[in-house]
Amino acid sequence: MTPRPWRRTGNRTVHRDRWVHLRAEAWETGAGAVLDPWYMLDWPDVVNVVALTPEDGLVLVRQFRPGLGRMALELPGGIVEPGEADPVAAARREFTEETGYDAPAFRLVATLRNDPAHAGNRVHVVLAEGAVPTAAQRLDHGEEIAVEVLPLATILAGLAEGLIGNANHVGGLLLALRESGRMGP
Amino acid sequence: MTPRPWRRTGNRTVHRDRWVHLRAEAWETGAGAVLDPWYMLDWPDVVNVVALTPEDGLVLVRQFRPGLGRMALELPGGIVEPGEADPVAAARREFTEETGYDAPAFRLVATLRNDPAHAGNRVHVVLAEGAVPTAAQRLDHGEEIAVEVLPLATILAGLAEGLIGNANHVGGLLLALRESGRMGP
Repeated sequence: MTPRPWRRTGNRTVHRDRWVHLRAEAWETGAGAVLDPWYMLDWPDVVNVVALTPEDGLVLVRQFRPGLGRMALELPGGIVEPGEADPVAAARREFTEETGYDAPAFRLVATLRNDPAHAGNRVHVVLAEGAVPTAAQRLDHGEEIAVEVLPLATILAGLAEGLIGNANHVGGLLLALRESGRMGP
Repeated sequence: MTPRPWRRTGNRTVHRDRWVHLRAEAWETGAGAVLDPWYMLDWPDVVNVVALTPEDGLVLVRQFRPGLGRMALELPGGIVEPGEADPVAAARREFTEETGYDAPAFRLVATLRNDPAHAGNRVHVVLAEGAVPTAAQRLDHGEEIAVEVLPLATILAGLAEGLIGNANHVGGLLLALRESGRMGP
């Protein structure tokens, strides 16, 4: 059976402030079913950075995450600020601020989605090879972020046990490693 | 710098119905900054199924996704229903309903998170090898889902171009392929 496109028949804001925008859309499916409300969240676009040192260490950050209730080891990154047209420039900005590392080149590996069912924002995966420490972290007020460089082999051995717990980050990491020739096929 | 844990100081429901639960928590970071509101979304746990046929085809589904505004090619899966204790059983149920395929064994590859910053739900990645069609799809009212079996090589060649656009699914797929011995290291 070939699925038919849906048609949006409604859209209202449920809750909005500077942090979140929850909308209740209404959709009519290709089969004629009415889905009302269909919730959508308008998050900003995101950049995740896969940064490798010259010794094949992966540059990671560790910080408290409320959804977990504990510290999480993650790819560095953050949001694309309003007015930032180039996700690769946003990735470099977030990476240097958060880690104090920099790299000779940053390149876009893929542009994916976090949640195509309920959000329209994009997640850009950016690869940086030859990353080295060049400056101090520049953190926002109240942020405490530890920078940890772990051997790539250690990371790969720990992925199935949730060493990096964010499924989006696992996807970005493995895609970037394939792109860099470090994983096959 | 070693990040210190945060402390939750508030929690109120902003909007709740059977589809979504948005809460505004308040947190005090380890550095003493107050983050109020810190939004949290209570989604159900999710299962994503990486199912390979005996010919190394990947069993995928295509359906309309409002966040994209078009059809999306995705891993089969869905939510763990209330009362379902075993995510592997939930994965098999969702997989057989959605695709009409079944497999001799399903095994848990990893349990990750979709969004550790703003959600507490888990995403279970489940691998099924030897998947074959055994029955008709059993879809909910209004659902139109096409089943597509694509050669694994085609999928891998298309990942960086967004052939599978959900970053969580890319992570689950590549983890499961490593687990199955189809990708290294």
